[in-house]
Amino acid sequence: MGRIYRIDMTDLQVRTEEAAGSYAGLGGRALTSAIVAEEVPATCHALGAENKLVIAPGLLTGTGAPCSGRLSVGAKSPLTGTIKESNAGGTAAVNLAKLGIAALVVEGQPERGKLYRIIVSKDGARVEPADSLAGLGNYAAVEGLFEEFGDKVSCLTIGPVGEMVAAAANIAVTDLEGRPTRHCGRGGLGAVMGSKGVKAIVVDPAGGSRVQPADDAAFKQAAKTFAAALKEHPVTGTSLPAYGTNVLASIVNEAGAYPTRNFSEGQFEGIEAISGERQREVILERGGKVTHACSPGCVINCSRTYVDKDGQYVTKGPEYETIWAHGADCGIDDLDAIAQMDRIEDDLGIDTIETGATIAVAMEAGVIEFGDVQGALNLLDEVRRGTPMGRLLAAGAVVFGKAYGVVRVPTVKGQAMPAYDPRAVMGIGVTYATSTMGADHTAGYAIAANILGVGGSVDPLKPEGQVELSRSLQTATAAIDASGLCLFVAFAVLDEPKAMEAICGMLGSLQGRPFTAEDFAAIGRKVLLRERAFNRAAGFTDADDRLPRFFKTEKLAPHQITFAVSDEELDQVFNFEE
Amino acid sequence: MGRIYRIDMTDLQVRTEEAAGSYAGLGGRALTSAIVAEEVPATCHALGAENKLVIAPGLLTGTGAPCSGRLSVGAKSPLTGTIKESNAGGTAAVNLAKLGIAALVVEGQPERGKLYRIIVSKDGARVEPADSLAGLGNYAAVEGLFEEFGDKVSCLTIGPVGEMVAAAANIAVTDLEGRPTRHCGRGGLGAVMGSKGVKAIVVDPAGGSRVQPADDAAFKQAAKTFAAALKEHPVTGTSLPAYGTNVLASIVNEAGAYPTRNFSEGQFEGIEAISGERQREVILERGGKVTHACSPGCVINCSRTYVDKDGQYVTKGPEYETIWAHGADCGIDDLDAIAQMDRIEDDLGIDTIETGATIAVAMEAGVIEFGDVQGALNLLDEVRRGTPMGRLLAAGAVVFGKAYGVVRVPTVKGQAMPAYDPRAVMGIGVTYATSTMGADHTAGYAIAANILGVGGSVDPLKPEGQVELSRSLQTATAAIDASGLCLFVAFAVLDEPKAMEAICGMLGSLQGRPFTAEDFAAIGRKVLLRERAFNRAAGFTDADDRLPRFFKTEKLAPHQITFAVSDEELDQVFNFEE
Repeated sequence: MGRIYRIDMTDLQVRTEEAAGSYAGLGGRALTSAIVAEEVPATCHALGAENKLVIAPGLLTGTGAPCSGRLSVGAKSPLTGTIKESNAGGTAAVNLAKLGIAALVVEGQPERGKLYRIIVSKDGARVEPADSLAGLGNYAAVEGLFEEFGDKVSCLTIGPVGEMVAAAANIAVTDLEGRPTRHCGRGGLGAVMGSKGVKAIVVDPAGGSRVQPADDAAFKQAAKTFAAALKEHPVTGTSLPAYGTNVLASIVNEAGAYPTRNFSEGQFEGIEAISGERQREVILERGGKVTHACSPGCVINCSRTYVDKDGQYVTKGPEYETIWAHGADCGIDDLDAIAQMDRIEDDLGIDTIETGATIAVAMEAGVIEFGDVQGALNLLDEVRRGTPMGRLLAAGAVVFGKAYGVVRVPTVKGQAMPAYDPRAVMGIGVTYATSTMGADHTAGYAIAANILGVGGSVDPLKPEGQVELSRSLQTATAAIDASGLCLFVAFAVLDEPKAMEAICGMLGSLQGRPFTAEDFAAIGRKVLLRERAFNRAAGFTDADDRLPRFFKTEKLAPHQITFAVSDEELDQVFNFEE
Repeated sequence: MGRIYRIDMTDLQVRTEEAAGSYAGLGGRALTSAIVAEEVPATCHALGAENKLVIAPGLLTGTGAPCSGRLSVGAKSPLTGTIKESNAGGTAAVNLAKLGIAALVVEGQPERGKLYRIIVSKDGARVEPADSLAGLGNYAAVEGLFEEFGDKVSCLTIGPVGEMVAAAANIAVTDLEGRPTRHCGRGGLGAVMGSKGVKAIVVDPAGGSRVQPADDAAFKQAAKTFAAALKEHPVTGTSLPAYGTNVLASIVNEAGAYPTRNFSEGQFEGIEAISGERQREVILERGGKVTHACSPGCVINCSRTYVDKDGQYVTKGPEYETIWAHGADCGIDDLDAIAQMDRIEDDLGIDTIETGATIAVAMEAGVIEFGDVQGALNLLDEVRRGTPMGRLLAAGAVVFGKAYGVVRVPTVKGQAMPAYDPRAVMGIGVTYATSTMGADHTAGYAIAANILGVGGSVDPLKPEGQVELSRSLQTATAAIDASGLCLFVAFAVLDEPKAMEAICGMLGSLQGRPFTAEDFAAIGRKVLLRERAFNRAAGFTDADDRLPRFFKTEKLAPHQITFAVSDEELDQVFNFEE
């Protein structure tokens, strides 16, 4: 079952309940979205007392299942106005699960200007003043917390951007080395945490224990099969460990879908300098690490450790999305500069996709020139200082674009698009347009079949088949996000029937009941429909399931192509029932 | 019929056509909304080449009908995303009508950074470079234009805010004294003009002549009756001439509906210092003018001329809305400071309602304190300098609120609410919520029956009857805005059957056909349904026809009341057909 701790930030009291009724047996995104949909008024202000921040490990988290250490955080998003689940690695999910916790629900709102921390342990949860943490970057904040609580704890923190309740603020989750490098990045959930006056959540796993499956032997067998399937698949077993997520840069650029200078071209002339291949070389030359697990039990190890010329740690990764957002999208081909920006943004607690995209919009507005590294760093310094320019940047691409009258702002439902141009990868365009979360590549990663030939093959340059592809991926993703599995397991699952069987085997033996692929898909459908119902109640309609007009009117080089999936087709993505 | 000049800012060419087909016989808002609805893609970006700026005098404008000198300017609004008609006095409408012009349609978009002016005369329209006007305030801009073109011309200009295509930018129209004091204030149409590179439109009436009614004798008789009705009504004949629009301040404050400190209270303790009564005293003491016509042929004269302690001209009015927005809403009780801000904003070319409301949101955010006059003036200086803070302010209350994480932002469809709290005047709340224009008091001025006892009496503190009231006023207003009549004639029309008969008499004898009150209402219904259809196509739904949640959850003093008209009732406002 698992416990839910309700932490009321109005009276600073904690109430404990079992995850019962409609919440029973749910994990991860299924649980966060259920609680938000059921308890948060859809039309409330995301930064007001009525919103709730829900933190939940996945169903398989803490069981020892491979790649099952993901954390789901949900709320109404201040960036998009939709329901939001933002997903991160790190150690917190496993530690929460080991304490028998299904979810933390942070509710209410304290007096303005007060800061608190929440301590979660085997003895329960408590709220303590934390005014002394005010203004700290994530790195300094967690350093102090580890000193105080020991290096076994997990920390969820917000940086200065979360404290200023800015809509691009994220929530940092500490990794296996105790660094705040994993993030619930998208949708501004750090601002929701900040609006509740919570600077840090410390999870102390002492006294906790592994989640015990109903049929442990069967579970271990399924887990072993699953690990093997992940190891055997070329993406999860070879490409990702070798080159990390940034293995995609050359591939997507080659496909003409690598958004360059604020989505004005599909190929970047500086690709070589920021590719995954080059990144691997640089890291190896300097003595960094080219494989790195972002959470316990990972068998893919797609993260890495980036070091400077002296071999000193700079940041993790950086990941594909971050490198693109500050690289091609800003016309910057300097890997060290990108790593520096990644480190600064992790410390400030701001989403790297939204921030890179917003800097690109600032470049389009003429605030700085495309390619101007120092200008971009100066903008990040404005964020740190909380100046009006910094506030604008931290509010995301839509707000920045409005303040500067920019026509070409690549967002859906207020959230900046990630690193795939929807004109040249139409399947991901369908996901951007229709996802319950705004423009989000992880919501239905059509790149798999559009570009990588994983899970079949659908021509990225034609509208045919994209709706079906996106629908099926969005459904599977919602179920994966409920399970606590890393989304990257989908590569194996899409190609290898035995990987799907292994997931069903783990979920079935965990719960002591038969579990089929259809049960898995049903979880996904239910999550999506619940999220979509919330959004509808918040005022979203089919008209919001659209890309900005310029993707339909402005041709993208080199394919000279516009987004061609019709509105009528987009409106078919959710034509299913539970 | 009237001519339409299409001014293409892409190729800088002008095409002339007759207002034929579905545009024939339309004036003012009926024509601007028809052209925008028919020709502008609803989902286009308001600052892009696809939007059109349509400028049209009313049907009765130029005929000599009393109070018929209003100008309608329409476009898709960059502030609200809806269709927009913004309405102003001044001399331009009459001069356009005398030249036989039904509308100017400014289309396309020139190269970025180029500035032009459009010269309209009996010989047609032409586009000329105007880079030398860049950065000029409205006062300096029109001074130069009058020097060049003589003092008989009318000027429509944008200030620096329009040049920066900021969403609160307005369009200034010169008054009878040649000052840029009348404004198409709401909805950011100055940004649309700026996005088309048009700094100024000069209308030279030389060679033009009065619009000739089909039955001139009957027309003159109806016009005489109409003027008499306006003179006889206590509001248009006595209160407005004596105290100007700010006569309302004491009345609305007494009713507990005068929004104070960002809509946190309904009465302002500093009311006496900024009331219409006090304003009249100050102006009389200093030798300013307490009556003043904003456009030719006005018989109400509700404007005034505000002078400083040395008797030197400062600004017109200021009007009720401006005084409230910078006064009670900002906790400021200094009439001279408010007049100074009005002058600055007229010069910058920025809507005084949106700007005052945004300053109040900045105060709520803690950027400056409520009541801080110098702080407010400093913010306006940021606008003039185009700093990031200035950009934020000029982008309006919603964008400012997002950048600073403010929960209480009193807007509908992106536009700040005017000077009536919808909790204590529920009829105006219905208009705010459902108007095709966003929160707009002029779209259906329920204050008449809710507070002033004009056109019947509907209890402002109860939901009953408000939907019917707002519907009927919105319909009548749309017809008035099509006619070119000043909205204030409605006070007489609502109470005096002969005033309505006189309008029908004028419209009928103008066109040489029978014209009934039902014909008048039909114009209004058609305009509203056309506008609403555009908004629907742009993605607006019933869910957008709502007040921000805090008006339903937060009680307003002194009545301790929340907005009580239900969503279901709001959805009944437009339950009519053409």
